[in-house]
Amino acid sequence: MRQSTLLIPTLREAPADADTASHQLMLRAGMIRQVAAGIYTYLPLGWRVLKKIADIVREEMDEAGAQELLMPAMQPAELWQQSGRYSAYGPELIRLHDRHGREFALGPTHEEVITTLVRGEVSSYRQLPLNLYQIQTKFRDERRPRFGLLRGREFLMKDAYSFDADAAGLEIAYRRMYEAYHRIFTRLGLNFRAVEADAGAIGGEGGTHEFMALVDIGEDTVVACSDCGYAANLERAEQGRRGASFSLDSSAASSDKSEIESLHTPDLHSIEELTAALGATANQLIKTLIYKADNGQVCAVCVRGDHEVNEIKVKNHLGVDSVELADAQTVQKVTGAPVGFAGPMGLTIPVLVDHDVAQMPSCITGANKQDYHLAHVRPGRDFTLTQVGDFRNACEHEPCPRCAEGTLHFYRGIELGHVFKLGTKYSAPLGAKYVDRTGQEQVMMMGCYGIGVSRVMTAIVEQHHDANGVIWPASIAPYQVHIVPISVKDEVQWDLAKMIYDRLRQAGIEVLLDDRDERPGVKLKDADLMGSPFRIVVGKGAGEKRIEFKERGTPEAASMTVDEGITCILNAVNKM
Amino acid sequence: MRQSTLLIPTLREAPADADTASHQLMLRAGMIRQVAAGIYTYLPLGWRVLKKIADIVREEMDEAGAQELLMPAMQPAELWQQSGRYSAYGPELIRLHDRHGREFALGPTHEEVITTLVRGEVSSYRQLPLNLYQIQTKFRDERRPRFGLLRGREFLMKDAYSFDADAAGLEIAYRRMYEAYHRIFTRLGLNFRAVEADAGAIGGEGGTHEFMALVDIGEDTVVACSDCGYAANLERAEQGRRGASFSLDSSAASSDKSEIESLHTPDLHSIEELTAALGATANQLIKTLIYKADNGQVCAVCVRGDHEVNEIKVKNHLGVDSVELADAQTVQKVTGAPVGFAGPMGLTIPVLVDHDVAQMPSCITGANKQDYHLAHVRPGRDFTLTQVGDFRNACEHEPCPRCAEGTLHFYRGIELGHVFKLGTKYSAPLGAKYVDRTGQEQVMMMGCYGIGVSRVMTAIVEQHHDANGVIWPASIAPYQVHIVPISVKDEVQWDLAKMIYDRLRQAGIEVLLDDRDERPGVKLKDADLMGSPFRIVVGKGAGEKRIEFKERGTPEAASMTVDEGITCILNAVNKM
Repeated sequence: MRQSTLLIPTLREAPADADTASHQLMLRAGMIRQVAAGIYTYLPLGWRVLKKIADIVREEMDEAGAQELLMPAMQPAELWQQSGRYSAYGPELIRLHDRHGREFALGPTHEEVITTLVRGEVSSYRQLPLNLYQIQTKFRDERRPRFGLLRGREFLMKDAYSFDADAAGLEIAYRRMYEAYHRIFTRLGLNFRAVEADAGAIGGEGGTHEFMALVDIGEDTVVACSDCGYAANLERAEQGRRGASFSLDSSAASSDKSEIESLHTPDLHSIEELTAALGATANQLIKTLIYKADNGQVCAVCVRGDHEVNEIKVKNHLGVDSVELADAQTVQKVTGAPVGFAGPMGLTIPVLVDHDVAQMPSCITGANKQDYHLAHVRPGRDFTLTQVGDFRNACEHEPCPRCAEGTLHFYRGIELGHVFKLGTKYSAPLGAKYVDRTGQEQVMMMGCYGIGVSRVMTAIVEQHHDANGVIWPASIAPYQVHIVPISVKDEVQWDLAKMIYDRLRQAGIEVLLDDRDERPGVKLKDADLMGSPFRIVVGKGAGEKRIEFKERGTPEAASMTVDEGITCILNAVNKM
Repeated sequence: MRQSTLLIPTLREAPADADTASHQLMLRAGMIRQVAAGIYTYLPLGWRVLKKIADIVREEMDEAGAQELLMPAMQPAELWQQSGRYSAYGPELIRLHDRHGREFALGPTHEEVITTLVRGEVSSYRQLPLNLYQIQTKFRDERRPRFGLLRGREFLMKDAYSFDADAAGLEIAYRRMYEAYHRIFTRLGLNFRAVEADAGAIGGEGGTHEFMALVDIGEDTVVACSDCGYAANLERAEQGRRGASFSLDSSAASSDKSEIESLHTPDLHSIEELTAALGATANQLIKTLIYKADNGQVCAVCVRGDHEVNEIKVKNHLGVDSVELADAQTVQKVTGAPVGFAGPMGLTIPVLVDHDVAQMPSCITGANKQDYHLAHVRPGRDFTLTQVGDFRNACEHEPCPRCAEGTLHFYRGIELGHVFKLGTKYSAPLGAKYVDRTGQEQVMMMGCYGIGVSRVMTAIVEQHHDANGVIWPASIAPYQVHIVPISVKDEVQWDLAKMIYDRLRQAGIEVLLDDRDERPGVKLKDADLMGSPFRIVVGKGAGEKRIEFKERGTPEAASMTVDEGITCILNAVNKM
């Protein structure tokens, strides 16, 4: 395309309200513009990229045997009432009334619609399995839309739903999607990890992975092994192998036969204050936190002073929907002391003890008495170890819980997609049943599989840019080649540029020709910003049919003949 | 694809609530399912067709120099308030509030968003012209959704917007879209006419064509010439050439020197009653109707007894927004008689006289006196002809208003798309201006160009079906070839069917293989219903490598060898 005919409004400066590299660059390169908070127009350049991402997703979904369809954005509220999500979804669900006063939701996801559809059309085991997907605009009224396309209120999503006769079928469908996602994100040039994740609000019966792009602006912490494929969200990551992470020598420590010693610790509440005052290290202390579950149950959780309680693990252990730190009044009531002096000894509430605490030879804990702590406390001797488990976050550099050699590393990540085993969460309440081989009625087993298509674009830009602009992977570049004649008024330059343009287009390559009468600096800056993988500058050498060829992301341009340049590009494109 | 793996839920019977052939067939062929009134899911088969239609639209838009982008469905209400449409659009505009109470509209069209975008990004004549389009889900809360996809509340639309420096530029953009639309609807296999249309509520400064598919279920009447390209909506069509349509011989008639005669016509109100009682023909009578405009103005309109008043023409002549028939009280007041006895003689309100009335040599009219009519009334002699014009609908078989030879014919039509010259209707209130060559600020000239993509699918099915199912044009068939082995359990048949399937797919052809263990009658009925252009039946002749080849829509299948059948298909597909 000739650049002068296109709407690519580049900006010299990053707008003040854009606070991530990807958001700034997408605005500066003329790819997107905000219409309202979290609501964007994709300009021609951005839309070309988004379409290419969607096409790669579509190809791999089709290849994996999924069938594309399109469901409506407007969903009758009754469907959401049947699944029980109409109230549960909260203010993120956009609701509206039609002219007759009937309630609708704008779909943030389509479990209700697809399950109702399949309930109506599928009745026999012979019609299963099915995997149905769509690439569609979704709506979610985020409380704080931010980071450009990363957390928007209207966004493009691929959502797939599998229907199987039994758990074995679901396992196959899930695995097939898991592998398709690997292919998709690899083709998109992303550095990603598939991590074990907690099922969260969407629910399901276990078995869920999130595909995370590893980027600095990540909203989540990804824990991954240096050696094996193990990776998990921090909220889900298991702690390292027992014992291996423990820095004190347990045989030496077990010789500590000292009696418990009472320490006067006025105004020392935090681990930091205690270690400083007592000359101890954090891993010699027990941190005891009092939690209250949504069912009213109160318990204590003990982790080592250098560890963090993982509330998801506590909640899952208790079998409740949520837990939160108890208020000061409750703490006073169950420990007999204000916040900051709790310890496991003498408590009458359940005490959840982390594995690493159970292995401590001797430790310092709160005395359940204002301004006092206790030293030389020995787990098992001085308090019982009836509920020992994994109640803490994994730590960086600790041994991998899965393999023999690896250690855990932490990364920032953003979610690109996820795969979920839903089981019968929707098929049971919505009545999606089939008749099996023996004539028995059975509830279908479902999975759901999402990819945030517009979010993926953000992740790609975060991973592929430099100070001057985007560096597109060739698979999704809006144009593969950018031709920049230094002066369009110089006939020799212009004719040569035009000739290269025509030849590359005839070879099926997408070429952007900068035919604008602008200063060379402006044009080269724009080219870097837009980030085509290959740039050809036609300047003074045009008379000798020489050009400057440069791959975006490499520091130096190379002078070569036109034929050499075209060969370079054809070779590179054929390799893609 | 193997049919057993696909969700194509065909139905033997047409659902009771589907009242048009296209709606019935799309449901029966398993292409669509209703989610709520006017809101549909496109099942895999229907979605394949819709994507192909969208791709043809996209190719021709790109070819015409338009650039694709994507604007959001959620539009801030403020934009609609600025254009003045927020209240004017009425209940068809779906409105909602976000979690912060801010008002939004779900876009039924995007003039406000695109004009605001271009206002912000374009400031110089050097950035013009521009033509920006999207293919996007639109929302319109129809009072009575019906005919399946024809009048839906959520539907797929292509909308394009052109921005030019001046009227000459707009003319070029308009013409380019007009021609692109011709190519699009031709490629889609549609029988259509581009008709002159009234601008309607969307407004604009004149210059609008509707592209109408000629189908029996059409909601509009299309008037088209048998010889030249003239076509118009009935509301807009000009009446035939003066004089030529008049059945009485004017020279003979002008010899009627008779004096006016008063006729006692008690209880004779209608043209039918009068002609029956008086032994006259309707074209000897003047029909006089009293209209009231929205500004309060009252006038009489006279057309011949066999003609119909065209209110759009009356409204345009008066320069008002709307007219309606006056109530009985007003008629009594201005004519001195009850409804049914009005005539042009002696009225003190303006009298709009249709051309054909002005040419009548002698006629019968109401006497403006209860129970009386007048005969031998002569226009020009007995009432003045100060406001003569075209105030009636065109009539079938009358001469074409444009060419010398043709006559007008009437068709039922449904709108596929339209092209509008908007002029400055949106650019002026929303402030979309640019600086011209001389440094002067100018308002941009806009056009808008819509195609109802899902509506187009309905029109295609209406025009391409028989009693057994759809007959897809090859350009948009979900699968080009349908292979039906009579028995999948017969190894010879199955192996041959599979071999043909593989060979055609390797040649890049989209093939559906009916691998279901169903009775032959069921499979052949389904194949007809789904309407692939070519069908290959593999039956008893499989041992001799013979098949039955049939083009959908032709009555007879032909027996031939596999190689002949494949050659037939390859030839046909290459010709497309």
